[in-house]
Amino acid sequence: MVSLVTTRPGPVLREFELVDLLRARLAARRDDTRIGIGDDAAVLRPCPGHDLVATTDTLISGRHFPDDTSAFDVGYKALAVNLSDVAAMGAEPAWLTVSLSAPSLSRDWCERFIDGMQAACRACPTGTPIDIVGGDTTRTDTLTISVTALGQVAAGAAMHRAGAQAGQAIAVTGTLGDAAAGLRCWPQRATASTAQTDLIKRLTRPDLRRGSALIGQATSAIDISDGLLADLGHILAASGVGATIRLDALPYSTALASVVPEAADRQRLQATGGDDYELCVTMPLDARPALETALGCPLTVIGQVETRTGLRCLDGAGNVVAPDTLGAPGWDHFGMD
Amino acid sequence: MVSLVTTRPGPVLREFELVDLLRARLAARRDDTRIGIGDDAAVLRPCPGHDLVATTDTLISGRHFPDDTSAFDVGYKALAVNLSDVAAMGAEPAWLTVSLSAPSLSRDWCERFIDGMQAACRACPTGTPIDIVGGDTTRTDTLTISVTALGQVAAGAAMHRAGAQAGQAIAVTGTLGDAAAGLRCWPQRATASTAQTDLIKRLTRPDLRRGSALIGQATSAIDISDGLLADLGHILAASGVGATIRLDALPYSTALASVVPEAADRQRLQATGGDDYELCVTMPLDARPALETALGCPLTVIGQVETRTGLRCLDGAGNVVAPDTLGAPGWDHFGMD
Repeated sequence: MVSLVTTRPGPVLREFELVDLLRARLAARRDDTRIGIGDDAAVLRPCPGHDLVATTDTLISGRHFPDDTSAFDVGYKALAVNLSDVAAMGAEPAWLTVSLSAPSLSRDWCERFIDGMQAACRACPTGTPIDIVGGDTTRTDTLTISVTALGQVAAGAAMHRAGAQAGQAIAVTGTLGDAAAGLRCWPQRATASTAQTDLIKRLTRPDLRRGSALIGQATSAIDISDGLLADLGHILAASGVGATIRLDALPYSTALASVVPEAADRQRLQATGGDDYELCVTMPLDARPALETALGCPLTVIGQVETRTGLRCLDGAGNVVAPDTLGAPGWDHFGMD
Repeated sequence: MVSLVTTRPGPVLREFELVDLLRARLAARRDDTRIGIGDDAAVLRPCPGHDLVATTDTLISGRHFPDDTSAFDVGYKALAVNLSDVAAMGAEPAWLTVSLSAPSLSRDWCERFIDGMQAACRACPTGTPIDIVGGDTTRTDTLTISVTALGQVAAGAAMHRAGAQAGQAIAVTGTLGDAAAGLRCWPQRATASTAQTDLIKRLTRPDLRRGSALIGQATSAIDISDGLLADLGHILAASGVGATIRLDALPYSTALASVVPEAADRQRLQATGGDDYELCVTMPLDARPALETALGCPLTVIGQVETRTGLRCLDGAGNVVAPDTLGAPGWDHFGMD
């Protein structure tokens, strides 16, 4: 159990003080936020000719982030994982609601939590501000944050998981495996090297991508939250196709190469480690340069969509690597004990 | 801690089985739900010329409902409290996301939980179906349900808390105090009388009101979740006005009169008991008959908006009743120990 009061000394906030604090710090910045925090509900004006994208993700202390994560990083990550889902739909994020349940809260902890949320909004590459327009505060034993993100995309243009076609390339943004390696480094973070600190930062403050860049370029997309193999598997299943990927083509950071020099171990983290929140997309191979430019980040081809169902992983010599040697793909939140 | 497995025997569901179950049972029924459960996010098509209303409420076992509440009633209430906020804005509810966090879940429990959610959607007096379009499932020690409700209202027409004006009438839908009395009866529910059972049902399955009926008739609205005095106080503060209400004018059910015959005790429950989820509105007095017809439920005038700030309660003899004799109004979730 996280005790916010003992880890962050300061007077405990009462609920109305917290609501006042949130209202003061989270004033609406968008013209289309007609009413923000403070009424029974927010009132938002959707952009004409656009569809609305809605997603909800809940983060629980000790399960989705270490118990001793800073308030800033909790706020950052709770928003980032939801903004990532909006990006995977090709949408521009616009509005967020945040439900915060905690044992008790100090003003200092809340201020840092808000700082982290606002930093995630600023870090999100989007053309307009993102407003936090409502939410809820309740008391519970385990710090729990539930966020709903709303985004907008031209009507009918949202990216699906089901659009992958045989012959198309599979690509990922940024680098993979950093967050999983960062989790390994977490216990040593007080004395971490620069490379280890970089990896931990990728765990706590994942990079956010410009999902709207996918429109008209990619044929399907998903964000990598449960691990590449699991999440790519969702695209393949929804599209009724299969794929082959090259493990030695998976992009890695210099920090990961430094901290995890052994290739097989590194590729395991890249293939099955979760929490990277990079985008995995399919597209015609010749769309890659323009899409990379539009995204404004590296976009690396890692394999190809095929008619034959199933997901095959090849090593550097072209040999098939059995999936179970890479570790069980993905997470089952109810299966873990 | 609620143990769903021991109270509801049956095989424990794994996460993917739960998602499959939700997807199968919660197929979209609205034309404007373009993608429901199953992708990174839902895709929804807003109604042209309408504003979007968004609200989030989280319910925690043992805090917002008794630990031994049935799965059906948990599902019903988690949705009802959010649909009530949408109604208080004068909007028509359209879409919901549901985040369910629990220690573990049996298939039977989940089926009943879904039954309860669907019953709440059906019980909501709205012209179109309400779709559950997404959500999240996670494991935690304490059963926690976080719901976001999205509704639609003609652009610029949403009801605010800030529209009350001196001279207007204050009215409430239905009856008050039932839910608070139902909570009193909860320990005896196995041997409850018909009247006690009626009150308990008002606690677990609050009536839902047709919020869209308020448009063009009411000048402000709020739903009574924390108790009449607290919630009416929010309208008065937002509108910069005061009010006088008559405690003997507060509408009560025959069940409440039977179970709580003593008037002062009953009026305390009506004035400060939460969880009724009736609507409290202000309006010109002559608008009452038409608004009652549009709402399709009793609408009782309980007092009047006044220029002088503050909220005054009068007893049947016209004497002012001190607020502290009515009990502390409202809830402070972080203040309770």
